[in-house]
Amino acid sequence: MNIFAVIMAGGSGTRFWPASVKERPKQFLPISGGLPMIEETFRRLEGLVPAERVLVVTAASQADLVRAALPELPAENILCEPMARNTAPCVAWAAHEIARRDPDAVQVVLPADHVIRPAEEFRATLVAAAEACLEGGLFTFGIEPDHPATGYGYIKAAAKLGESQGQAVHAVERFVEKPEQAVAEAYLAEGGYFWNAGIFVWHTPTILAALAELTPELDAGVRRILAAPGDAAVLAAEYQKLPADPVDIAIMERAGDVRLVPISYTWNDVGSWKALDEITERDSEGNAQVLGGGARLVSIEASGNLVYAEGERVIALVGVEGLAVVQTEKATLVCPLDRAQDVKRIVAELEASGGDFL
Amino acid sequence: MNIFAVIMAGGSGTRFWPASVKERPKQFLPISGGLPMIEETFRRLEGLVPAERVLVVTAASQADLVRAALPELPAENILCEPMARNTAPCVAWAAHEIARRDPDAVQVVLPADHVIRPAEEFRATLVAAAEACLEGGLFTFGIEPDHPATGYGYIKAAAKLGESQGQAVHAVERFVEKPEQAVAEAYLAEGGYFWNAGIFVWHTPTILAALAELTPELDAGVRRILAAPGDAAVLAAEYQKLPADPVDIAIMERAGDVRLVPISYTWNDVGSWKALDEITERDSEGNAQVLGGGARLVSIEASGNLVYAEGERVIALVGVEGLAVVQTEKATLVCPLDRAQDVKRIVAELEASGGDFL
Repeated sequence: MNIFAVIMAGGSGTRFWPASVKERPKQFLPISGGLPMIEETFRRLEGLVPAERVLVVTAASQADLVRAALPELPAENILCEPMARNTAPCVAWAAHEIARRDPDAVQVVLPADHVIRPAEEFRATLVAAAEACLEGGLFTFGIEPDHPATGYGYIKAAAKLGESQGQAVHAVERFVEKPEQAVAEAYLAEGGYFWNAGIFVWHTPTILAALAELTPELDAGVRRILAAPGDAAVLAAEYQKLPADPVDIAIMERAGDVRLVPISYTWNDVGSWKALDEITERDSEGNAQVLGGGARLVSIEASGNLVYAEGERVIALVGVEGLAVVQTEKATLVCPLDRAQDVKRIVAELEASGGDFL
Repeated sequence: MNIFAVIMAGGSGTRFWPASVKERPKQFLPISGGLPMIEETFRRLEGLVPAERVLVVTAASQADLVRAALPELPAENILCEPMARNTAPCVAWAAHEIARRDPDAVQVVLPADHVIRPAEEFRATLVAAAEACLEGGLFTFGIEPDHPATGYGYIKAAAKLGESQGQAVHAVERFVEKPEQAVAEAYLAEGGYFWNAGIFVWHTPTILAALAELTPELDAGVRRILAAPGDAAVLAAEYQKLPADPVDIAIMERAGDVRLVPISYTWNDVGSWKALDEITERDSEGNAQVLGGGARLVSIEASGNLVYAEGERVIALVGVEGLAVVQTEKATLVCPLDRAQDVKRIVAELEASGGDFL
């Protein structure tokens, strides 16, 4: 059994502005440690999936960033989407491409910009799911919630079907959208609900059958792309026409046999400066430092702040608390962590006034 | 009567860190408007003192900055101190240099880094003092206090001696150091106390006589420097030996005939980010923007902040109040305006750890 990995790296989010800009979105930032997130994701697979079996699906405009972050990745393993069409086309394209290379492969699909720790435990879960999926079923990972989060979709697990490599495998009862606070609290109280991590594992014949059955239009479009290898015009024309749905909606929520492996170690989709603050260790003064390339923090009676900078820079804080302070070459953000969601209002204002600094 | 001006531009303060660094101290920053403060000071004299009668005393290391800020200044009008020796040597050197060029000149001595508005009123005061000083006396300007400031030295005025060009001229009773709060309040209540602006006007024969009488060592040293024009070795050797006193202490407080012209228009020595905030107009959201060279502020529900940046940069504020936020190419400062004095603690910490970013 060969495991192939599909790293979905096409995002262009702005929730990490000003660190994240169009030319260098979040997955290329060293947000979760010393390395760009996509490289962390790649390294997390080391020992389980060699570089020649890792595909990265990304925007054409980001291909150079991928090559720079993952120099050992073979050139033909970067699938460049001519335009963003959400995750179902990405998954379908990669599924067929892997089938072309190894029709018996197990496929692991994972976002480039999540934090998952420790890597060994994650790989153990992947192995368990990879073995189990040979018997059929589309596998997803469910994170055991430790608080009533409203920022994640949930998955309601059904009966435990058995174990694989010592890890439980459940049937999935249903997927649910991001809940209101009270609903999230009820989920937590009731139990059996897991956060949807957006990580999938399946056997190639299983996903191909699901695509053909559940999304025939998508499936046919991707087959036409595969039938014209290297033809950029066909790729652009066909990709444009693919239905732009999330994989959860196009496939997972409609598939007959979806299974879930619960995980209880650290997972975070790091959706905001506040989320980053929460997963970052404090320094001796209680600040979270995410500094790269020689950047420094000097603080005087300041604590509970998240400080992000790259390069030969210094951020100096005096007597402030609970702030996100981000410096890039061209921009500074100062925002209470509790208002991290308002970064999008800054981005909207910059967008409206000409798009500079984005 | 020719008026010569002496602009004292040798400071290397760090209270405006990170905007002010060793290579570009405060007097070269566009802090008070669109122009570097030294240029604002120079332009303030326009129409009264032509460039060929303006001397700038500065550190040798800052001569290039002076030339860049004041390209019309003749090269021989920049007096480069080989080392900082406080203000009395600076004043004495300039006094003798002016005497060499025009022994009957009136001399106006003023710091390069103060805000004084409006310029016309300032020039009118200079003219009044310049005319009055021909009768003798060392003239200083006293700012009528509008609050019990503890950050300035005070001058106790004595009887009004008369008027010059419609401006009152007082005898000076005494100089007093920066007072405690209660003392400052008493001064304000009692009246007759003025802030010491560090601006001086005198007739060349008067200052030469005062130097010879009050500071013979300083006077003799400067005479030896003048006697060896262009000799850098003599300059360095003699300057090193000059007593490093402030002009107030070496001369003004000990002189027999000191006179004061009160001024009531805007004067500020802009001694901190907080002081800058106080003299800067608010924008429509209540923030003080000191931005140059294309820098922008984008704010969302943030007010009462002072924002300083130069160059193609953006500072984005969300929901913060009362902060100084300063971005330079290499540094960001975030500090409550009320704690602006703690910037020196940041500087001290950077100094202690190797002096980077200073």
